Amino acid sequence: MPTPNTQPILINGAWRPADHPSGTFQAKDPSTRQLMDEHYPVSRWADLEAALAAAAEAVVALRDTPPAAIADFLERYAANIEARADAIIAAAHQETRLPVSPRLKAELPRTTNQLRQAAAAARDGSWRLATIDSANNLRSAYASLGGAVVVIGPNNFPLAFNGISGGDFAAAVAAGNPVIVKGHPNHPRTTRLLAEAAFEALQASGVPKALVQLVYHMAPRTGLRLVAHPAVAATAFTGSRRAGLALKAAADKAGKLIYVEMSSLNPVFILPGALDERLPEIAQALYASATLGAGQYCTNPGLVIVPAGELGEAFIEAAARLYRDGPPGTLLAENVPANIAAGLHTLQSHGASVVTGGRDSLAEGYCFENSLLRVSGRDFLAQAEPLQTEVFGPVTLVVVAEGADEMQAIADRVGGNLSGTLYSHTGGADDARYQRLAAALRPKVGRLLNDKMPTGLLVSPAMNHGGPFPATGHPGFTAVGIPASLLRFAALHSYDAVREPRLPAELRDKNPKGMWRKIDGEWTRGDVPVKGA
Amino acid sequence: MPTPNTQPILINGAWRPADHPSGTFQAKDPSTRQLMDEHYPVSRWADLEAALAAAAEAVVALRDTPPAAIADFLERYAANIEARADAIIAAAHQETRLPVSPRLKAELPRTTNQLRQAAAAARDGSWRLATIDSANNLRSAYASLGGAVVVIGPNNFPLAFNGISGGDFAAAVAAGNPVIVKGHPNHPRTTRLLAEAAFEALQASGVPKALVQLVYHMAPRTGLRLVAHPAVAATAFTGSRRAGLALKAAADKAGKLIYVEMSSLNPVFILPGALDERLPEIAQALYASATLGAGQYCTNPGLVIVPAGELGEAFIEAAARLYRDGPPGTLLAENVPANIAAGLHTLQSHGASVVTGGRDSLAEGYCFENSLLRVSGRDFLAQAEPLQTEVFGPVTLVVVAEGADEMQAIADRVGGNLSGTLYSHTGGADDARYQRLAAALRPKVGRLLNDKMPTGLLVSPAMNHGGPFPATGHPGFTAVGIPASLLRFAALHSYDAVREPRLPAELRDKNPKGMWRKIDGEWTRGDVPVKGA
Repeated sequence: MPTPNTQPILINGAWRPADHPSGTFQAKDPSTRQLMDEHYPVSRWADLEAALAAAAEAVVALRDTPPAAIADFLERYAANIEARADAIIAAAHQETRLPVSPRLKAELPRTTNQLRQAAAAARDGSWRLATIDSANNLRSAYASLGGAVVVIGPNNFPLAFNGISGGDFAAAVAAGNPVIVKGHPNHPRTTRLLAEAAFEALQASGVPKALVQLVYHMAPRTGLRLVAHPAVAATAFTGSRRAGLALKAAADKAGKLIYVEMSSLNPVFILPGALDERLPEIAQALYASATLGAGQYCTNPGLVIVPAGELGEAFIEAAARLYRDGPPGTLLAENVPANIAAGLHTLQSHGASVVTGGRDSLAEGYCFENSLLRVSGRDFLAQAEPLQTEVFGPVTLVVVAEGADEMQAIADRVGGNLSGTLYSHTGGADDARYQRLAAALRPKVGRLLNDKMPTGLLVSPAMNHGGPFPATGHPGFTAVGIPASLLRFAALHSYDAVREPRLPAELRDKNPKGMWRKIDGEWTRGDVPVKGA
Repeated sequence: MPTPNTQPILINGAWRPADHPSGTFQAKDPSTRQLMDEHYPVSRWADLEAALAAAAEAVVALRDTPPAAIADFLERYAANIEARADAIIAAAHQETRLPVSPRLKAELPRTTNQLRQAAAAARDGSWRLATIDSANNLRSAYASLGGAVVVIGPNNFPLAFNGISGGDFAAAVAAGNPVIVKGHPNHPRTTRLLAEAAFEALQASGVPKALVQLVYHMAPRTGLRLVAHPAVAATAFTGSRRAGLALKAAADKAGKLIYVEMSSLNPVFILPGALDERLPEIAQALYASATLGAGQYCTNPGLVIVPAGELGEAFIEAAARLYRDGPPGTLLAENVPANIAAGLHTLQSHGASVVTGGRDSLAEGYCFENSLLRVSGRDFLAQAEPLQTEVFGPVTLVVVAEGADEMQAIADRVGGNLSGTLYSHTGGADDARYQRLAAALRPKVGRLLNDKMPTGLLVSPAMNHGGPFPATGHPGFTAVGIPASLLRFAALHSYDAVREPRLPAELRDKNPKGMWRKIDGEWTRGDVPVKGA
């Protein structure tokens, strides 16, 4: 039975109680394991059914909604978040125990910046990659999908990846789709405060009221039903591989799009010349990156490959000292330390040994020791699959490779990842090895880095936060970086001999807003050339 | 047991006998039902395993293969096809009984033109959508997938969609991927002649010898195993919904990309003003389009919606006369008339009635009467799903809609299709209805047409031969139209702080070839601006 103070959900432009929820839940303060006051509903199918019906109406209304109105909504929303910044950051801190400064104070402007970039993309229209073949009067552009987009956010970025405010949300809305958000149960109050900011922006903008809808939780089977529903066009999920694969199977079977960001080890290869040149600096960089946010980053460097021998041993020793001396961070939720322990067990039972850490830190809050493990290159190659088990938290496995060929063989066995990094000598001493290794690593990762750790993800048009399976489900799409991230939620629409006045603005002859279009093979901000002129 | 003259398959740069094939097959002349002389092998897994191993080596070799070498291969191949044009067209005619002129004589240059466009795209590199954020030294571009692409072509275009020469082939190769082709068993000799032209081009170009490999046939379970194999990155399939869905399920489960083009009715809405203005012309256009290639086109207009009343009846009468008087074409294979009969049975058992045709034409070859069926809008809406069963052949279902609202409701119930067409009065008399109908139809189709039938697919950068499920598996991709079709076989590669000399050519500071790149938000053919300049 829901308690009297159970929080309402946002359906069809109104806050309303969940319809006979199957239960309620409360977030816990990760630093004290104490339940927080607010109760949130676990939605049954009835809530989703209502959201789907409203979204289907929004799809129709969006046909007549100018992109400028969507941009206006996104910008108002960003401003509303800023106006509530202190309360939102306080809630996020209480629910996640991520540090207020620098972390959450950086994540909030990153979030609003992303919403504003999405607004600019929607307003400008260049993201549509409008293409015009004037001789044949054939024109194409990307457009909204014509269905709802379900956004299921992760636990680790309560703002910048929150289902109601993060990159997937911004991209799906900017591309003109109504979204149905499932908040993450670890930080419902943060989600609610964000949703209230969104709700106010919805009311003030000329957009369909069901453009943004929110539920807080649902049973897994409800989620599987949701992503396969006829009114849904696509789903964006960020989270565990297990949940991601289950949702993907349900969506795939129904012929529905789904973008899953599931797991990544973000391998870091450190070449001998780099160690020779700047060992302490790289050890410090690894420690800082691997323990950032208590290691709970999608781009956390979980696998590091070093050369065997004196330098490799010195590196492990230097890193181990930092891991040991550094205070372990508070983890997001109860399941995180339990999953870390299970992951470590998997690694150890396949040949890895603990250099430092390896135990629950027995703190008042959720916590696990910063952990560094090691394994020989030979043992890694013998068990390459289980030894690439993602351990979400401050855990790093160092593979000690005997010689260039073994390091190369390791690169060949690495699975699909969001990122891959190579540290090499700045003077070129590693260049021959770099060449071979980078060539092997390149197709396995979405983003290839030189001489820097993979955490710290810029929202840039040239970013790729994506990668081959199982990092994601399709290596051609990025979850971060505007305008490219919008293309996940877009259909290609071609117009064949359609009369000019009937075309959407982005494909008309005149281009008053000066959006980028490819006309007869040339990118231009201009109009379609007048025939015979 | 394979017969002594069983044709070899093309594996790893050599023609060699299939490894203990499970059997052999012969094509049949569709006009006589006579078996042809040549025997082709049905490959067991061993052949695919050999192809996969060679393809994996080709993936590595392709890292050092300049795009110009791939372009050179595609251009030589096009020239080799032209040099063999008479023999190829003769084989295609004998195996498909598609008319030599105008059909096959047009399909061959379309095929070579497509190969040359793909070559130009590979050489130029603009298809990669290179994106550079110079302030952050973050750069991205599309690149090959790092695995084999399996291409499984359909029966209906022995040249322009042949797995070894068609649009999927050209796109996958131009994007830098090795391809493993499964020919269609209805036209193995055509495929062989094409493959021989490809083989010669392979030998003359500086490309890996396993860039193109070919088998002729395999058991369905072998295909399911193939598309899920670790060495495969993606599959392109064109064919029946049943086979497409089975392959898609296998690939999805393994986390492999698959592009399926499965079925489409290509609905045509004819508004009252258009009929009032030019009824005979539209009836003639429908007949011509619906019976082109004996109706065996992916873009065949299988569903036509006309207004009830005098004009609609006159249209049906005019069309029926043409369907009845026109000679039925020879169908591609034995299963085609059988499938048509089954499809007609489905339509009839759900309320459609035959206006003309409806029977196997009892000709010497495979043949079915040109068939026009009708159903009321009301009955259609009551059984919208079975009445959208694709019947691959010269069969059209006319839905007679009572009034604008019923026609609108029909548009709302239309499923995912490759194309959708609206005929309307040239003077604007239908404009209000057009507006509503087009808005409903737009998200259901990849290509929207005005006042022309959907058959006849231009290879243009603005083409979209794609559409929402179940027409294809992803509405963001097109199978026809270069360079966009290459993106299906590409991964997004981002480079974060990678040293400039290590970048691929398309992302270096200098741009000597003048490819289009988006640098700091602006599309340009220029270099990366020098800092501080």
